[in-house]
Amino acid sequence: MAHHEIETTWKGKMQFNADVNGHTIVMDAPARVGGEDKGPIPKPFILTALSGCTGMDVVALLRKSGIFLSDFQMKVRGELSKQQPLEYVAIHMIYSLSGDPGHQQDVLNAITDSQEKICGVSHMLKKAMPVTWEIIYNQEIIFPNHSAERKSVAGIWH
Amino acid sequence: MAHHEIETTWKGKMQFNADVNGHTIVMDAPARVGGEDKGPIPKPFILTALSGCTGMDVVALLRKSGIFLSDFQMKVRGELSKQQPLEYVAIHMIYSLSGDPGHQQDVLNAITDSQEKICGVSHMLKKAMPVTWEIIYNQEIIFPNHSAERKSVAGIWH
Repeated sequence: MAHHEIETTWKGKMQFNADVNGHTIVMDAPARVGGEDKGPIPKPFILTALSGCTGMDVVALLRKSGIFLSDFQMKVRGELSKQQPLEYVAIHMIYSLSGDPGHQQDVLNAITDSQEKICGVSHMLKKAMPVTWEIIYNQEIIFPNHSAERKSVAGIWH
Repeated sequence: MAHHEIETTWKGKMQFNADVNGHTIVMDAPARVGGEDKGPIPKPFILTALSGCTGMDVVALLRKSGIFLSDFQMKVRGELSKQQPLEYVAIHMIYSLSGDPGHQQDVLNAITDSQEKICGVSHMLKKAMPVTWEIIYNQEIIFPNHSAERKSVAGIWH
């Protein structure tokens, strides 16, 4: 069965180094909980994985159509539960891209395909919580939010 | 509402740099899909987050009892779906620790508390798929597997 495997080694105090397909990723805790802040805390790697997964989808899909972006950023926000264990209960993304004005529909289609069909991280996380997104292209909101009922989550970010 | 937020910027080709609480995390794709392998692929960051979350729990819980480990490693394996979108359908962890032989029960309790009560990443992921684990302490298996019905997942790893 196909699989991914990582190996993580404790480096003293609160530092853990993960070997992820040949690259070393350092995780650490802030000083107030005994760490030295040598790397990110672990939980936001969930958000990081989501941004990388969908980001690579979008670039690859557009490239197939001969479309190249001039700029592409994503903000990913995970709302934390009020109770322990501290976990994300909703994730909202803002895609912000720049490129040829004639490619607006292609960009919208690529992000929709990634979120709804291709991105395995998004598909996994949606089994555990709502994942919503909005899209800004050339400084204009072209997709305000995925679903009206999640608008409150997006609303507080702006 | 308390939240975590990350920002990810496309750096050309398939490279994406994420800013995660002040640290830059590079993600990239292998050459066969247009990348330059400058960092890990995104999906295994899910496994990385899990290892860091539970690893920090265990070290912190043991430290509270005045217990220090001499060595601590984790392997995390994510089984990939057969169909698209490619996602993890089961996660299995092997904890491997060394320390004072008298602290075996404390180590077992700390890992159980992390997996069943404290670790938010494990709690989140369990909503989407089974997460199982086994524990090796001083080269001896002290916890063979979380649940008998998942034994097949563990079995293929050894």
